[in-house]
Amino acid sequence: MTGVHPAWLPTSAFRPIGSRRVRVLGDGPVVGTVRAEVAAATAGHGGALVDDGPADLELVVASDAGETDPEAFVVGRAGATTVVRAIAGVGLLYGLHHVVRQGESAFTGEFPARRHAPRQAVRMLDHWDNVDVHPVMGQVERGYAGGSIFYADGVVRADLSRARAYARLLGSIGVNRVGLNNVNVHRTEATLLTDLLPEVVRLADVFRPHGIRVHLSVSFAAPITLGGLPTADPLDPAVGQWWARTTAAVYAAIPDFGGYVVKADSEGQPGPFDYGRDHADGANVLARALAPFGGTVFWRAFVYDHHQDWRDRSTDRARAAHDNFAPLDGAFEPNVVLQVKAGPMDFQVREPLSPVIAAMPRTRLAVELQVTQEYTGQQKHVCHLVPQWREVLGFLPWGEGGATVADIAAGRADGPAGGVVAVSNVGDDPFWTGHPLAQANLFGFGRLAWDDRLVPEAVLDEWIGLTFGDVEGVRAALHEVMGGSWLTYERYTAPLGVGFMVNPADHYGPNVDGYEYSRWGTYHFADRDGVGVDRTRATGTGFTGQFPAPWRDVYESVQTCPDELLLFFHHVPYGHVLRSGKTVIQHIYDTHFAGREEVCRMVETWSRLAGLVPVEVHERVTELLSEQLRCATEWRDQVNTYFWRKSGVPDARGRRIY
Amino acid sequence: MTGVHPAWLPTSAFRPIGSRRVRVLGDGPVVGTVRAEVAAATAGHGGALVDDGPADLELVVASDAGETDPEAFVVGRAGATTVVRAIAGVGLLYGLHHVVRQGESAFTGEFPARRHAPRQAVRMLDHWDNVDVHPVMGQVERGYAGGSIFYADGVVRADLSRARAYARLLGSIGVNRVGLNNVNVHRTEATLLTDLLPEVVRLADVFRPHGIRVHLSVSFAAPITLGGLPTADPLDPAVGQWWARTTAAVYAAIPDFGGYVVKADSEGQPGPFDYGRDHADGANVLARALAPFGGTVFWRAFVYDHHQDWRDRSTDRARAAHDNFAPLDGAFEPNVVLQVKAGPMDFQVREPLSPVIAAMPRTRLAVELQVTQEYTGQQKHVCHLVPQWREVLGFLPWGEGGATVADIAAGRADGPAGGVVAVSNVGDDPFWTGHPLAQANLFGFGRLAWDDRLVPEAVLDEWIGLTFGDVEGVRAALHEVMGGSWLTYERYTAPLGVGFMVNPADHYGPNVDGYEYSRWGTYHFADRDGVGVDRTRATGTGFTGQFPAPWRDVYESVQTCPDELLLFFHHVPYGHVLRSGKTVIQHIYDTHFAGREEVCRMVETWSRLAGLVPVEVHERVTELLSEQLRCATEWRDQVNTYFWRKSGVPDARGRRIY
Repeated sequence: MTGVHPAWLPTSAFRPIGSRRVRVLGDGPVVGTVRAEVAAATAGHGGALVDDGPADLELVVASDAGETDPEAFVVGRAGATTVVRAIAGVGLLYGLHHVVRQGESAFTGEFPARRHAPRQAVRMLDHWDNVDVHPVMGQVERGYAGGSIFYADGVVRADLSRARAYARLLGSIGVNRVGLNNVNVHRTEATLLTDLLPEVVRLADVFRPHGIRVHLSVSFAAPITLGGLPTADPLDPAVGQWWARTTAAVYAAIPDFGGYVVKADSEGQPGPFDYGRDHADGANVLARALAPFGGTVFWRAFVYDHHQDWRDRSTDRARAAHDNFAPLDGAFEPNVVLQVKAGPMDFQVREPLSPVIAAMPRTRLAVELQVTQEYTGQQKHVCHLVPQWREVLGFLPWGEGGATVADIAAGRADGPAGGVVAVSNVGDDPFWTGHPLAQANLFGFGRLAWDDRLVPEAVLDEWIGLTFGDVEGVRAALHEVMGGSWLTYERYTAPLGVGFMVNPADHYGPNVDGYEYSRWGTYHFADRDGVGVDRTRATGTGFTGQFPAPWRDVYESVQTCPDELLLFFHHVPYGHVLRSGKTVIQHIYDTHFAGREEVCRMVETWSRLAGLVPVEVHERVTELLSEQLRCATEWRDQVNTYFWRKSGVPDARGRRIY
Repeated sequence: MTGVHPAWLPTSAFRPIGSRRVRVLGDGPVVGTVRAEVAAATAGHGGALVDDGPADLELVVASDAGETDPEAFVVGRAGATTVVRAIAGVGLLYGLHHVVRQGESAFTGEFPARRHAPRQAVRMLDHWDNVDVHPVMGQVERGYAGGSIFYADGVVRADLSRARAYARLLGSIGVNRVGLNNVNVHRTEATLLTDLLPEVVRLADVFRPHGIRVHLSVSFAAPITLGGLPTADPLDPAVGQWWARTTAAVYAAIPDFGGYVVKADSEGQPGPFDYGRDHADGANVLARALAPFGGTVFWRAFVYDHHQDWRDRSTDRARAAHDNFAPLDGAFEPNVVLQVKAGPMDFQVREPLSPVIAAMPRTRLAVELQVTQEYTGQQKHVCHLVPQWREVLGFLPWGEGGATVADIAAGRADGPAGGVVAVSNVGDDPFWTGHPLAQANLFGFGRLAWDDRLVPEAVLDEWIGLTFGDVEGVRAALHEVMGGSWLTYERYTAPLGVGFMVNPADHYGPNVDGYEYSRWGTYHFADRDGVGVDRTRATGTGFTGQFPAPWRDVYESVQTCPDELLLFFHHVPYGHVLRSGKTVIQHIYDTHFAGREEVCRMVETWSRLAGLVPVEVHERVTELLSEQLRCATEWRDQVNTYFWRKSGVPDARGRRIY
């Protein structure tokens, strides 16, 4: 490999299209992208981009009385011609990549025309990229794949070829919005809104041909820091005017600008609480500035007390988003989307759903996922997260027969549509994501955001086929290494939904008591008798009461609470018998031995792929698997030793605990 | 206060001398210093520096057939004249400051001439100052008082007035050597030996008039990094030649240069182990280069495995210095001083003596203390360490009737003289030491290094009188706040000699398991049944066997081991009854409640001094005491909660544990 890895769009993936006669009909920048893709493919594989005569594939933009969604497309095959139709270029682009994913089968036999449309209108990636390198957080906050592909040396990169290649990858999986900068907005980044706006225009130009609108994270204090006003009080007319004026200037430069992303009153960021206002006041002042231009503000619900006293057992960080936001349901402007982390804590390997998501029927809600592996191995560990996201999106907050989380986000439940948002995992690493196999998380996010009903194994299979082609032995081995890797990671890290137990400094590697006496509200309360957080209504923090039935009762009872969330909701003795039939302590021992063994098997399986996958990929993954094994061993031993020292209960199988 | 605090040399301290007629006889730079002190004092207080006529004080340098120590002086008073005599300027300087400390009593009545001479020939302060600011460790490694007074902007400061004032302070307490740079020698600092040598000359010029010789910390890899040689193997002739040549150049520039300080094969620093050589080989190549010029190499014994596996209970960091160095006794050149940290671990609030100190009779040994409060509150906490050092220096490694540690260091035991060395606690803070009361540690180090038999309370009393004068109420209050503060700090931090339990990142504040699963070899092994490190010969690491009798047996037995070191030597059940009659767990609770209460009393006592001490001092100390109270509360609660959760034993007095 020289240069940058092609991810899931290697030349070989275009062979079925590229070896055929293809006609493209339509105009505009995104159709231009489609035409360029076809031209490159046919040039490389012996086909032709034709204007007339018989065609194997027709890609057509045309109005269609029955269709209103510009992102939808119809694919069918009759005779010897496959036809993709859409009413706009972006639909056609998505149709093209659908055909790429289908491969030869798109050109085999006949099949009736079928409509494909995204199940979510908003499919967004947030970048936590800083323009300047932050002294503690680096250039990409929680980035594990090198520097930013957007920024270098304090400005937008002169060479945007990486950004362009990235936009192409995102367009191919249907991502349609990108947040360009970190939600923690530092001094330089704040000026993207004003002084650096011409640079943002360049980035918008890169994303536009792929159907992607750009957003900026803004600081709530910008009226002060950028505008020179004495206040950022959202109810102050001068503040509203400043936002309106500033936003108009942005739209003058970028007419299809998407809007803002805001982290306010959170972990030190300024917000409406500074002025005694609530978050609806805060979001609405921005929303009103954006409304005339069709822009949207994504307002994050990640608000909690990050100076908690560990001695105080009544305050519960898990409750915070619901406590802060649920009372505001109905108070937000229609172009506000409340962006809610999927779980109530912070992107742990396992959490229950954030109950806010089921509590605000009159508010547009977006579910926020994390593609970057902050707490899930930091792209040093294989941890394929698509199954986790599938569980989140398919979760039934009101039980069987009710709407799913994806339905809520899509506006198919009682409320309006918000969407699906995730934090990106790319950087300027030649493999994009540090760990080559972490590309599958980015791919899978786009695919699930498009259709939440896709089966994770099928999405993984698509990714394997596109990325590695159809090499004997590779497909099965990669399913083996990646398919269950999320559960493997869960097994060797914090047990039974209790979360954290990582090093506070960098969120990597085990530190069982690392957060136990900290101000972050993330505790496990292990003592010599038991472990877990009592969040019941009966005796705990009452968090279970934030859920609708049936979950408020399912989680409340230690008898019905799912095993994998037991310690999130209950403090139980080590001898408590799980629904699986095992005691808690034996479950801890067994999963930690098993998880580490599974990593051993990953190492073995991967070693068999030498010679079957590109040598650079094989070497990088081999090296990272060795770190994963080291780290999983450390997790196993520290967690087991910690609980053995505390409980005094020996392993029923007599294995080595230190 | 404007500018820099005068520490223990305020103008007022010179009133008794300054109001009198004083004659100074002698020549040379140090006599010049004496004369300048007297001139300034008399100018300020109405006395006179006279050449003839009657004098109240005569300060005389004259040869004396009976005296050989240039640092010694004789003071007596007959008739109305106090006379100080010495055979060299430096003795006279020490005599002058002796008179300053005596105050009016030096001019009262008559008293016979009495000789005063230092009990240690080497009384040295090491600075862990970096020339460049280190990205993690800052400019002064483990410095808690601002930046370096020597360096700024990557070079020696243009304005050396702070360094000059510091040299004066050190001269007044008899410190006679200063190591100018951090023992972790980084790139820029390495070049002090070569390119930056002209800058070192300026620093030597600052210290010389106060009787102080300067040293440089050097990198063992300097022949490679500075000399361009392919190796730093101490047995390679080219390496020896490079050191000889480089050292000669240093002495050409600084004829009274003291020599080198070396941290080798320790915590990542290069050393002779890299070449399969031992530490005698390493030290001797430097010693031979220094010998022709009368220079000395201070070779640190702080060598241990800092990549230890916490699972491995057989390796014991406490053993490391003895294991590495004791076999080399007799192998060092005569101008090598082995510099041994007083305890076997790393400057904890309580450790046993490092057994190396009693194990190398044919080696010059210096005892290293830490004035900078790395693990003892970082100059945010009042922790008056002079009583700790008094215990160390007065310790009897062979029991009653044998030599003391001070005797060993001074060459009064069987072996040759090494000296006493400490890490300085000053920076460019206006109070020198961050915490104004931490000045007393610097003062007390100098005084104890001069005479290890001084009583800590008396040294503290001297410091109070000099610094604050004789204000009603101040003396008693400061004894109350400071006198027992070391034991107070011990009470609220890690119990019974077990050590650490601090945050690994910065060594400040509680983190009971902070080092428990780390690579640093610093564990407490607490489980639900007990706590402590078994270092016995019978069942543990055998560390007790590194001590001579009686300690090898005293420490070996849980019945005779002193309470305050119990957990350093033994792993015991929480119910184990201490010699004090309390159980271990109740001792933990009681000391932690008591220690924190003592800080409350410090706060109250100090508050009564408002208006009695300078307002800037009062404000700074008040602010720091509030941080000390916050931190002590955190220590109390985390340690008590940790052990309560583990042991399940309730506090016998029913106090609040979280």
